[in-house]
Amino acid sequence: MEGNEMTEQRPGEHMAAEISQQPAILAGIVERQAEIAEVAEAISKRPPRFALLAARGSSDHAALYAKYLIEVLLGLPCGLVSPSTATLYGARPDLRDVLFITVSQSGGSPDLIEVTETARRQGALTVSVTNTPESPLRAAAELGVDIGAGLEKAVAATKTYSATLLSLYLLIDAVRGGKGEDAEKLGELAQQTLDGSVEGVQRAVDRYRFVDRVLTTGRGYSYATALEGSLKLAETSYLAARAYSGADLLHGPVAAVDGETAVLAVTSQGHGVGAMQEVLEAVGKRGADVLAVGSASADVPAALRIGVAPSAEEVAPILEILPIQRIALGLSLARGGDPDSPRGLLKVTKTR
Amino acid sequence: MEGNEMTEQRPGEHMAAEISQQPAILAGIVERQAEIAEVAEAISKRPPRFALLAARGSSDHAALYAKYLIEVLLGLPCGLVSPSTATLYGARPDLRDVLFITVSQSGGSPDLIEVTETARRQGALTVSVTNTPESPLRAAAELGVDIGAGLEKAVAATKTYSATLLSLYLLIDAVRGGKGEDAEKLGELAQQTLDGSVEGVQRAVDRYRFVDRVLTTGRGYSYATALEGSLKLAETSYLAARAYSGADLLHGPVAAVDGETAVLAVTSQGHGVGAMQEVLEAVGKRGADVLAVGSASADVPAALRIGVAPSAEEVAPILEILPIQRIALGLSLARGGDPDSPRGLLKVTKTR
Repeated sequence: MEGNEMTEQRPGEHMAAEISQQPAILAGIVERQAEIAEVAEAISKRPPRFALLAARGSSDHAALYAKYLIEVLLGLPCGLVSPSTATLYGARPDLRDVLFITVSQSGGSPDLIEVTETARRQGALTVSVTNTPESPLRAAAELGVDIGAGLEKAVAATKTYSATLLSLYLLIDAVRGGKGEDAEKLGELAQQTLDGSVEGVQRAVDRYRFVDRVLTTGRGYSYATALEGSLKLAETSYLAARAYSGADLLHGPVAAVDGETAVLAVTSQGHGVGAMQEVLEAVGKRGADVLAVGSASADVPAALRIGVAPSAEEVAPILEILPIQRIALGLSLARGGDPDSPRGLLKVTKTR
Repeated sequence: MEGNEMTEQRPGEHMAAEISQQPAILAGIVERQAEIAEVAEAISKRPPRFALLAARGSSDHAALYAKYLIEVLLGLPCGLVSPSTATLYGARPDLRDVLFITVSQSGGSPDLIEVTETARRQGALTVSVTNTPESPLRAAAELGVDIGAGLEKAVAATKTYSATLLSLYLLIDAVRGGKGEDAEKLGELAQQTLDGSVEGVQRAVDRYRFVDRVLTTGRGYSYATALEGSLKLAETSYLAARAYSGADLLHGPVAAVDGETAVLAVTSQGHGVGAMQEVLEAVGKRGADVLAVGSASADVPAALRIGVAPSAEEVAPILEILPIQRIALGLSLARGGDPDSPRGLLKVTKTR
């Protein structure tokens, strides 16, 4: 009987299934990109001068990815909203000429609904990006993008994260008149990445079974992957993982790196990888154990490398996260956890 | 012989001295606020519609504080710049009507100089906030605020952090026509806070001598303090400290909290403290050891509390950080480190 499941689930069953669904989901989004292009057209009719993004948790990392895309591809200044300035302090900024994008898979977080309603009243063009088209968030925003990833059962977001990234990429690319060419083969590339990383993931799970200190790092577009990777490890494997942009890491936190530290470095082909060399040399000198993940992982000093299918760097974060999700899943199981329902977490977090 | 010091220094001597100088430095900035008001007047003559802030390290936490002030007090949408979109990807956004504030104590970081030059060329009104008025950053920006904290010898920023916060507060308050009333007594309040927290700081240093997992948290204005506190602990005591806004903590990372985790919660009087109750109950249920620091520390569940002199909540971060700096200093010494020159760090980090 569906809706009243009595069969016992294996730990991580949902997360494993949802990770594997991603190639098909990504391909489906590319096929339906005309829907996203319609939203982009509505935005182009009211060209914004500034963009703001509001999100929490994994969606906040997707929002950071979108911030980079908006700055680089659209040439618009862009900011991430601190919802509490509106919800706690009653800030009511003048938002005419502002594109305001709220990202939330559930579309149910009260603070995000409130800031979206406020932004709309203050003159912004509001857009929701959500996996729940009938959500209150979708109703609050003027325009909406449905990522269409299907119900996510595991508490740890996986397929909704990659689907959100791709939806945001297609939206922003379409606003500048693009046709999403760089995303065309992402379904295939995601499958290649998952298939090609099975052994590397297993080696990483073995190697980091007993790790305590993990730090993730990346530059440019890949910084979003470092943040999301850190959150996955924290919420499924209970690791004290921290993420730093490569640049910020050198400003202080590198001092805490030692021989007990594993550094997960996201290194994809493109402009970011050169800047990562310096960072990885610095942590290497301090004795850290480096795991490089990305299409340029072969080009950096590392103890272990996991490849990712090459792609345009703008869409690389959609692929980079895939083996990291599997590492988080594997570590959680190896440590006796259940990544489908981590201790202390609910799927929808209702912060105010 | 000055400039050629041969006397051996005691570990942490500079950091200890610089922490103690803060009340006098803060009082001095308040006295010289007319200089800051002149910069504010120049901004008011070209009223911006958006604001952007660029910074790295401790200054980035000061920039986040300023972002909240700009959104709440000025009602302007505001974003933190990701320097790499300009330096790595060549983003050239249209920045007319944008107030662009770059925060850097040294004024010497090449990426910040580059983004400031780019912003000025793209039409922004550029303002530098620095402790080094003859720096290349000051030369790159149209307007400049000199925080006047005096040479900082310790690698870990302390007096330049609080001086930067106060300078930003006075600048933003003056843009809205304020006279800095809420900052008037900060010198005195800082002295009270330092004097009144000596015993609490010692107890915290004793209690956390062997801690391994530290998490810092705060909401609203106090989130900047949580971030800066986390960085101080990481760079001086090599702790794997992470900072989360109270809201984000409930979105996943709370799963990694357990009986081995110390949570430093910044809890000042005002709108943020109610929201912190829920967060501290959640981490308390998971067995965490809570250290509350702030003027409302008596109002939350905690194992140890350190008071901070009450103030308007907009300026509370200038006081909250003081006992935390002393905890970082004390823990570093107790663990055999030298916070004046942490391993692997230089005072000026030249990221590109």
